[in-house]
Amino acid sequence: MSTANKLIELAEKAREKGGVNLYKKNIEMVLSGLLITGNFWSIVDYADLPVPAAAGIVNTLLEEGYAFIDQNQDIRLTQKGYDLIKEYNIHPRKEYRCQACEGRGIPFYLDIELYRAFLQETKNRPKAIQDYDQGSVTPETTVSRVLFIDSRGDLQGKDIVVMGAEDDLTGLAIALSRKANSVTIIDIDKRSIDFDNEIFERLGIKNAKAFVWDLRKPLPEDMLGKFDVFITDPPETIAAFSAFIKRGISLLKDEGAVGYFGLTLRDSSIYRWREFQKILTGEIGVAITDIIQDFNNYITWDYHKETKAYELAPVKKDPEGIWYRSAWYRIEALPGFSRWNGVISDEDLYLDEEGSTT
Amino acid sequence: MSTANKLIELAEKAREKGGVNLYKKNIEMVLSGLLITGNFWSIVDYADLPVPAAAGIVNTLLEEGYAFIDQNQDIRLTQKGYDLIKEYNIHPRKEYRCQACEGRGIPFYLDIELYRAFLQETKNRPKAIQDYDQGSVTPETTVSRVLFIDSRGDLQGKDIVVMGAEDDLTGLAIALSRKANSVTIIDIDKRSIDFDNEIFERLGIKNAKAFVWDLRKPLPEDMLGKFDVFITDPPETIAAFSAFIKRGISLLKDEGAVGYFGLTLRDSSIYRWREFQKILTGEIGVAITDIIQDFNNYITWDYHKETKAYELAPVKKDPEGIWYRSAWYRIEALPGFSRWNGVISDEDLYLDEEGSTT
Repeated sequence: MSTANKLIELAEKAREKGGVNLYKKNIEMVLSGLLITGNFWSIVDYADLPVPAAAGIVNTLLEEGYAFIDQNQDIRLTQKGYDLIKEYNIHPRKEYRCQACEGRGIPFYLDIELYRAFLQETKNRPKAIQDYDQGSVTPETTVSRVLFIDSRGDLQGKDIVVMGAEDDLTGLAIALSRKANSVTIIDIDKRSIDFDNEIFERLGIKNAKAFVWDLRKPLPEDMLGKFDVFITDPPETIAAFSAFIKRGISLLKDEGAVGYFGLTLRDSSIYRWREFQKILTGEIGVAITDIIQDFNNYITWDYHKETKAYELAPVKKDPEGIWYRSAWYRIEALPGFSRWNGVISDEDLYLDEEGSTT
Repeated sequence: MSTANKLIELAEKAREKGGVNLYKKNIEMVLSGLLITGNFWSIVDYADLPVPAAAGIVNTLLEEGYAFIDQNQDIRLTQKGYDLIKEYNIHPRKEYRCQACEGRGIPFYLDIELYRAFLQETKNRPKAIQDYDQGSVTPETTVSRVLFIDSRGDLQGKDIVVMGAEDDLTGLAIALSRKANSVTIIDIDKRSIDFDNEIFERLGIKNAKAFVWDLRKPLPEDMLGKFDVFITDPPETIAAFSAFIKRGISLLKDEGAVGYFGLTLRDSSIYRWREFQKILTGEIGVAITDIIQDFNNYITWDYHKETKAYELAPVKKDPEGIWYRSAWYRIEALPGFSRWNGVISDEDLYLDEEGSTT
């Protein structure tokens, strides 16, 4: 019993430091990650935790003498740390991700023409900026999204709306596939909108349009109930998540219509996931058909050093490759779903104790 | 508007025939499947529907003259059917499943030693029988489950319990990996239990044990709270699902412990999925971390012709390859989860209007 208590004690200390709920298993996962890497951002990735939580754990391990920072600014286990790992029978995190499809189950290169066209057209894409909480996914992620949607019967002949996060250029990729009946893209960032519209005009893509809209405001009435599919990347506070998804639902034509969105364990905890899931299945009344972890891989943003996440990091060293990932959700609207198109307040969008990368 | 009504009308007619809730999108998916295959079981697979629902739709299409049965006992579209497809802009279902990992994101061959050992040891495995509602998954599925569990930090050094469905031999595969701290297998079928125990004894696997237990009965008190991971394949009526998962939860040590199980859209509708998800996140109080569609592929069982599904099929032709798949769920217990270890009545387990393959 004494062994269990040591990890629980660490979880309690880390909870105070990180300000986020934590349990024994989280400590295990960080220790498991430390057996593979010393880079803080890679540990966040392995441990599947919000940055403040991972920082709280690493800081606690440093303070309690289980770990130290070496001359390369890497986090290393001390002898005391290795003893702890032995005592608890903790093993290095195993990685079996499929090399072919990057673990998504759908390889982006199965539509190599689309992938090439997307890369070609997006060479000069606008850079992600902090003003709009942007962080672009890899081109492989964007193209995989299109193939995933197609594989579920949600692309061909469908009316699709992309609500925000067009820095990922998902709307553009859908339009380039030329399979949807129509593509409507709304985003607050004029740069993405202009970028898309220029391509649509140049390539003669007539069934796609993009326009600037602040998604905090209700959408134009004539859009409600007009779409088969919405795609979004909701903010991850409970109020804003709920409002974004409800706004998406309000755009759907009828039951059987679907929504896609990303959700992280980097800016939300598993506790909050449960709240989101209760809201989706209860209040909003949809069924969740898919949750694919690590589907969305993000390119580290240029403004990384200006984020709360960077500030919280116990070591100021750059990430090594991709560390920020999100899960890909698909939801299906069932009969009786209700429309909502109200105002989302700034308060709803504010950073809370779990969010840190915006 | 007249176009939308035609599909809705078909959905209403099919709903009466199939006794299961249906909407427009379901009709679309069956028509989309008919553009690729004439085999009823493959259509069920493409359309992701309970068998009674798919049968209801196909029977409606036959009666209304949109489809006919050809001399090979395949279902074919009539000219009227093709006109409908054109009118609604319906396209053949697209398939982008990764060939390397069979769409699971984790290729079974990344532990080729385990795969070989599993095949070697299971050459003479007991055949699936109807008495216990069995239907075995492919060996690739079983091995992929082990790798998946390992990749989430839920295998190495963990105490694992497999509750029922050991005709899949998941418990055996976990034991063969030699990575868990302990493996406990309980199943009603003495054949699987004896099969496992013989192998454990022969190979000198000391940390695994299997014993016969009827999961309708409460588990022995000394098992409660002793495991890090439970794996099960719950019956898909609401009452039995809920009881099975709660029973699994009662075995878990603490928060952060996890459960894995399969859930189909063949014996449950998407409506019921939402109910399951509400029960999981609300009443049971866990978070859902993963839902991977089509993770579990089933070998068509020998007793297929004795099932309600076969009886419901509009055409009595054998399946072509795998048609029965289920999604793989992972859930995480959060603080405050409660234990339940009561009795599950036979009534709870009975077939209902959506189930048909047992």
